[in-house]
Amino acid sequence: MNEYIYHFSQGSADGTASMKSLLGAKGAGLAEMARLGLSVPPGMTVSTEACRYYLERGGLPPGLLVDVQKGIERLEYITGRGWGDRTSPLLVSVRSGGAESMPGMMDSVLNVGLNEDTVEGLIEQSGDEIFALDCWRRMIQMYGVVVFGLDEELLQVPIDAAIARAEVSVAQDLSAGQWRAVIDEMRLSIVEEVGVGIPRDPTEQLWAAVGAVFESWNSPRAAAYRRLHHIGGGVGTAVNIMTMVFGNLDQKSASGVAFTRNPVTGAPQPYGEYLPCAQGEDVVSGNRTPRLLSAVEERMPAVYAELGSYFKRLEGHYRDMLELEFTVESGRLWILQVRKGMRTGQAAVRIALDMLDEELIDLDEAVMRVDPDRHVPDLLSPIIDPSVERPVAVVHGLAASPGAAVGRLVTGTAEAITRSRRGESVILVRPRTSTGDIDGVSAAKAVLTTTGGLTSHAASVARGLGIPCVCGAQELRIAPDGSGIFIGDNFIARGEPLTVDGSSGSVYLDTLPLIEGGEDERLQRFLEICDRQRRMEIRVNANDLDGARRGSALGAEGIGLCRTEQMLLSDSGRLMAMRRAILVGEEGEAAGALEDLLRFHRHDVAQILRTMMGWPVTFRLLDPPLSRFLPHDEVSINQTAAALEMEPEDVASRVESLKEANPMMGLRGCRLGVVHPSIYAMQVQAIVEASRMVIDDGIRPIVEILIPLVADVEELRRVVDQINQTIAEHLHGAHDSMSIELGAMIEIPRAALQAEEIAECVDFLCFGTNDLTQLSWGMSGEDSRRFMSTYLDEQILSHDPFETLDRTGVGELMRIAIQRGRRANPELFVGVCGDHARESGSARFFESLDIDYLTVEPSDVPMARVAAARAFVAYERALAAARMQAE
Amino acid sequence: MNEYIYHFSQGSADGTASMKSLLGAKGAGLAEMARLGLSVPPGMTVSTEACRYYLERGGLPPGLLVDVQKGIERLEYITGRGWGDRTSPLLVSVRSGGAESMPGMMDSVLNVGLNEDTVEGLIEQSGDEIFALDCWRRMIQMYGVVVFGLDEELLQVPIDAAIARAEVSVAQDLSAGQWRAVIDEMRLSIVEEVGVGIPRDPTEQLWAAVGAVFESWNSPRAAAYRRLHHIGGGVGTAVNIMTMVFGNLDQKSASGVAFTRNPVTGAPQPYGEYLPCAQGEDVVSGNRTPRLLSAVEERMPAVYAELGSYFKRLEGHYRDMLELEFTVESGRLWILQVRKGMRTGQAAVRIALDMLDEELIDLDEAVMRVDPDRHVPDLLSPIIDPSVERPVAVVHGLAASPGAAVGRLVTGTAEAITRSRRGESVILVRPRTSTGDIDGVSAAKAVLTTTGGLTSHAASVARGLGIPCVCGAQELRIAPDGSGIFIGDNFIARGEPLTVDGSSGSVYLDTLPLIEGGEDERLQRFLEICDRQRRMEIRVNANDLDGARRGSALGAEGIGLCRTEQMLLSDSGRLMAMRRAILVGEEGEAAGALEDLLRFHRHDVAQILRTMMGWPVTFRLLDPPLSRFLPHDEVSINQTAAALEMEPEDVASRVESLKEANPMMGLRGCRLGVVHPSIYAMQVQAIVEASRMVIDDGIRPIVEILIPLVADVEELRRVVDQINQTIAEHLHGAHDSMSIELGAMIEIPRAALQAEEIAECVDFLCFGTNDLTQLSWGMSGEDSRRFMSTYLDEQILSHDPFETLDRTGVGELMRIAIQRGRRANPELFVGVCGDHARESGSARFFESLDIDYLTVEPSDVPMARVAAARAFVAYERALAAARMQAE
Repeated sequence: MNEYIYHFSQGSADGTASMKSLLGAKGAGLAEMARLGLSVPPGMTVSTEACRYYLERGGLPPGLLVDVQKGIERLEYITGRGWGDRTSPLLVSVRSGGAESMPGMMDSVLNVGLNEDTVEGLIEQSGDEIFALDCWRRMIQMYGVVVFGLDEELLQVPIDAAIARAEVSVAQDLSAGQWRAVIDEMRLSIVEEVGVGIPRDPTEQLWAAVGAVFESWNSPRAAAYRRLHHIGGGVGTAVNIMTMVFGNLDQKSASGVAFTRNPVTGAPQPYGEYLPCAQGEDVVSGNRTPRLLSAVEERMPAVYAELGSYFKRLEGHYRDMLELEFTVESGRLWILQVRKGMRTGQAAVRIALDMLDEELIDLDEAVMRVDPDRHVPDLLSPIIDPSVERPVAVVHGLAASPGAAVGRLVTGTAEAITRSRRGESVILVRPRTSTGDIDGVSAAKAVLTTTGGLTSHAASVARGLGIPCVCGAQELRIAPDGSGIFIGDNFIARGEPLTVDGSSGSVYLDTLPLIEGGEDERLQRFLEICDRQRRMEIRVNANDLDGARRGSALGAEGIGLCRTEQMLLSDSGRLMAMRRAILVGEEGEAAGALEDLLRFHRHDVAQILRTMMGWPVTFRLLDPPLSRFLPHDEVSINQTAAALEMEPEDVASRVESLKEANPMMGLRGCRLGVVHPSIYAMQVQAIVEASRMVIDDGIRPIVEILIPLVADVEELRRVVDQINQTIAEHLHGAHDSMSIELGAMIEIPRAALQAEEIAECVDFLCFGTNDLTQLSWGMSGEDSRRFMSTYLDEQILSHDPFETLDRTGVGELMRIAIQRGRRANPELFVGVCGDHARESGSARFFESLDIDYLTVEPSDVPMARVAAARAFVAYERALAAARMQAE
Repeated sequence: MNEYIYHFSQGSADGTASMKSLLGAKGAGLAEMARLGLSVPPGMTVSTEACRYYLERGGLPPGLLVDVQKGIERLEYITGRGWGDRTSPLLVSVRSGGAESMPGMMDSVLNVGLNEDTVEGLIEQSGDEIFALDCWRRMIQMYGVVVFGLDEELLQVPIDAAIARAEVSVAQDLSAGQWRAVIDEMRLSIVEEVGVGIPRDPTEQLWAAVGAVFESWNSPRAAAYRRLHHIGGGVGTAVNIMTMVFGNLDQKSASGVAFTRNPVTGAPQPYGEYLPCAQGEDVVSGNRTPRLLSAVEERMPAVYAELGSYFKRLEGHYRDMLELEFTVESGRLWILQVRKGMRTGQAAVRIALDMLDEELIDLDEAVMRVDPDRHVPDLLSPIIDPSVERPVAVVHGLAASPGAAVGRLVTGTAEAITRSRRGESVILVRPRTSTGDIDGVSAAKAVLTTTGGLTSHAASVARGLGIPCVCGAQELRIAPDGSGIFIGDNFIARGEPLTVDGSSGSVYLDTLPLIEGGEDERLQRFLEICDRQRRMEIRVNANDLDGARRGSALGAEGIGLCRTEQMLLSDSGRLMAMRRAILVGEEGEAAGALEDLLRFHRHDVAQILRTMMGWPVTFRLLDPPLSRFLPHDEVSINQTAAALEMEPEDVASRVESLKEANPMMGLRGCRLGVVHPSIYAMQVQAIVEASRMVIDDGIRPIVEILIPLVADVEELRRVVDQINQTIAEHLHGAHDSMSIELGAMIEIPRAALQAEEIAECVDFLCFGTNDLTQLSWGMSGEDSRRFMSTYLDEQILSHDPFETLDRTGVGELMRIAIQRGRRANPELFVGVCGDHARESGSARFFESLDIDYLTVEPSDVPMARVAAARAFVAYERALAAARMQAE
């Protein structure tokens, strides 16, 4: 072992599973398997540090060449083959592998070491000219694409031409002579395109491949994947140089992918797919539809038994469901890769619960095994309404990623992106997908492929993204011009609506009705485990009965944000009463309008309080600028004028007079309460009277009033005084003992700084992280869309701060506010109600801030319950680790 | 002495001059004069603490009555008179007096103790029935207004009616019988209006008067005065209860006001005015035009001599120009009040310099004697263009407050306010002004009165506000219906233009041309003293030659903010090139437009650098959203389309596409530099090339580039890298050694928090306090106008944060930014370029933050030089005081 090189071979390794950031996930896995004595082809890992050196300085670190050369000599010694030897050549694969699993995203070159000399050695060694030539053409293809950056199609042309010339149906049927011609054409194409050919010297090939892999870290598609999966940049990839083994050597050879448990359902039986006489890339690429692993048992029982014993050892060691890449070369099993298996939400939850029951993991770890963002939505994702009779499916395939989706048929990635940008839902149909399709797949509502199995690229990417996928629908053909698809003789044109059910593998013509994902017993059990493991309360944002009911059903512990303006915007009667209150000049009339609003409000509040049955409900007083309630186009101005018996010009001029240059920072929030106190007074009166009504019904409501957009403590005091006065006026008699808690929104930077004084006036604080982000960044969420993509593409920002909470700026203001607030009032209850509350990545930060509750949209409640539990576990673990380090 | 009562009489006092906050300015002055042995009527001061107790709890503090009663007994003992005694009654005045001088703003009641019994005693004692009755009716009038809150006019009616009935011209000519009838009518009016009369019991009168004075602290007009003069609320007023002395007793009696130096010119001779046989209020009210003090020398030489000796003692003691109220009662001089004399800017500067030369004060103190906001503008205030021949003045009066103004004639306060809100300039003409006119006076460009002298209310308020005033223009009469004014037989209608020259006392018909205040030698000397006493640099905001020249002429030490967008908006050629760069789709055309802009920019930058002759110039790169440069109405869209050979629809749609919901927080500032790097590159190239040109001319320019709207350090790094690259590309050859410093605007809260990282990338920071205020408060400066008045009127905020820097929020962010910035870069140069930079009230705060420079509009440069000097002196004094306390 030296600075950059980590060797491994069956029974020993320089690295371990814990060295992921140095060796990449793949390298660490190989090292660990080698240590465990699994059958791993010997090789070495070039660490991510070398990659960083390369990316920063534009060259390989000094000494690296010599060390790799020594490693190659070690492989020569172990395998008994020679590097560049024309009788028994040593061939290696060069594969990337970052610290975070990025399946299919990075580049690899196989069969490095082949040239016109060594290929003859390989022919001799294998006794199979076609096999050896096939290895060589694969090497040429991959080298061309990875090192020279050529288009994949360019090097496919000679093969397709040869197939046509030879009048055979697949490349496997080409003769050795035909292959030699193909290879000559390929090499010529490269020289024509690039100006030079692939170097003959194996070492030169190796350096070029290593450099290309390093550079692939910064390729647009790798960057896109990292952004999509929120993997930070700047870490670099490791490179694994490993002795080649050949799944395509003979009929006793095969390549496959296996999962220790079922990655779609989570059922505790191994699941896998393989292709006889094929290299691993053939399985993943989806070019051929593979066979089930169970068939191996019949054909190669010893291999199957060895594999089964590996599954047990690895699961016992890693305590998780694992995915293995394996190759059988002439009956001998080799494991090429191990990693935690990508899984659907169903599988994640089931595996976590099963392993808990199997006592492989504890409660904390079970919680950590389910990703709230990727897994929970799977279980809640739409399904086809079971109450509706289904038509006959037009085609069936493998149920590769669960859930159902409807959308318009598209056959190209570019079209998928374009249409989805226009707001259309699209179903992407492809023969197979490859890494270049990633943007198209993530733009689609569902993916349908004609070839490939559950382990194909399309399937695993769709599962990763949580979108439904049906794979290997072999009866389906895509029209050569892409104008639609054929199923038998049926033609379905591009743009036609389809419904895809990724849970059953069926595809339907037309748009079937979807409903929200149903009850899942395992999910319920898992969510209850999460509830026991978390500290932060999860509440729901709900402004009406429906939201309140859905939130409660999904486990919300009260309403954390009831936006009262939404109540007033919910129907035309309420809206018109609000418009009257704003528009009429006469005080008497305005008072009349306020009376109407009071009645509406009281009714709506009482309904919600009855529904919430004694769970807390936070009513946020009117927040948006008044112009939000007013008509803006001519038609609605005229309608409003007619309804209010006003002149249209008067309405229009009042509307005009309320326009603001920067409405986000204008007369809104509690400024309305200061300038137009009668509106807040009406709202508070309605809340108090509704509370009295439900108390009379025997329900004991817990009512909180939240004051939005506080900028200054004196302003807050004024509004609090007015609210308390209104409460005192309207809460009397038997209801005296009821207390209504008051809170302040912290969404203005100044309020965060003044939190100590503010906390003296209220019982709780609630961070509005959307506005706090806008103001801390001086960046309107709406307007930033047009330049945020530049900031992300150019890696100036790693995240859009409106999607991922900015801990540096917004986070510091939150920390300051909580520290100061609790200094004044140690009992201060603190919540978060911005969009960031739903974001699991920020949950741990909120946990570390000692936030008491998060309030999220109804559909996000289950995710938030999981995220809060994970945050608690992760934070406690980090604290324990810090304590241990301190001791 | 006890808790609330501080006694004083000639030769002794409980209080001292330093107890202003406890005794009010008036009470502290009386105490000090009594200690110095000046002839002060005996009395007592009820402290501001009693007032605070009263305002907070709604009643007088316990024990206060007994203590005041004891104080009254002491006055009985000293004066030999009896409280409520019908033969020799003790009468007192009850006057308010806050810690800060608020001339005429607070209430007083004189002759307390008079009733139907004691008035007979006063008649006997004085031997003058009419005098005694006059005292009584004054007491009734003041009591009615102050205690009962009656309208002044109501109690004037019986007097006017009696004058009419008696067919005399002034009240002084009424007989004793007529006065008795008047008094009966007044007392009847009060009973009819209020339901009760003035209590007969002197003690009851006293309590009611004290309570009314306490309450007057919260009167709207007192609150308005405090707001206008930025005097904080919540302190309360003291009450001075003092034995009455009568300037209206006989022909050897008089009342007057005297200044130890001339308050208009500052000339070192005493100046004063008096009225024989009058009470003090007659002098101040402006009802009668008083005589000059010098006349006293002839008529009462002993009094004059005594007064002169007092001037010397007091100036020697207070080391400042003082204003005294005095009364002569039957030849005996009494001093009723002393305070620092209000003065014009001319006087302030002259007195400061004279006292410095007289070695009464030192350099530091001289600096503190001139108020940058009130005094400096006086010296810079407009004058009538001396190069133009003046017409004959229509009327002359006393030159009561210097400077000239033009505006339309108005005769009423309400009209003055209405018209000035509409943006009109008005000249307010009144017989006299009283405290109720304060809002009208401050709305006017100049004030003209028919009666009253230099010490009248109108004169002193106008001087306080720094607006021109001509007083006592006796030839002028206001039409009874207010429709205009008569000067002799000439009628000048309301709305006609007038020019008032407050420096000469002349008034002209029509609008004369005004020019900026001329060079004043004393001012120059004073400013140079300030330059020596200050630490903060003063720079100027200038975007063109004119601004650069004016700023330099007024003493700016470089340009602190050159807004490059203003250069591009300065003429239609530049504007159209900018529009072309934004609007044309073709890259080639855009490049052409950028070439044009480069040429324009280079020319403008070179001009400014040449003008500034080696002083530093800070160019701020483009800041506003691009839509700022685009046409928005149909006509200009069509013109632009024609000029750019585009279709109007294309222009309109591009304009539409650049619209933003909240442009203040949209694509602007350095975000432009990130999204459209070619624009910033063009600007930097222009700056570099212009610098090379002026270097070739032999000027060594100091160039700084300021990057606006920084939110994030990575964003800044990107822009800094681009700038440095452009500099490196275009700065070569002989100019290599030139260095261009880079700075970041701190105007986004997040940038303040990230200042440590930011400071590592730049040489200087500049706070944009306007935007920092907007974002810290979540309040658009533009939109807040419509609700800020409510916040101020209801005393939720003491200041508009856009006028006065908010130290709590914005100030804390500044403190954090400076602390963090200097942690990374101890040499970091830090400035302020928001509107607050010109605000003298914040200068001391900036001084305490160790701000290096302030940059202000050209006309504000002299004020800023004074403010910076005062800030330095004040801060050093505060530090010294703190050190002393620590030792």
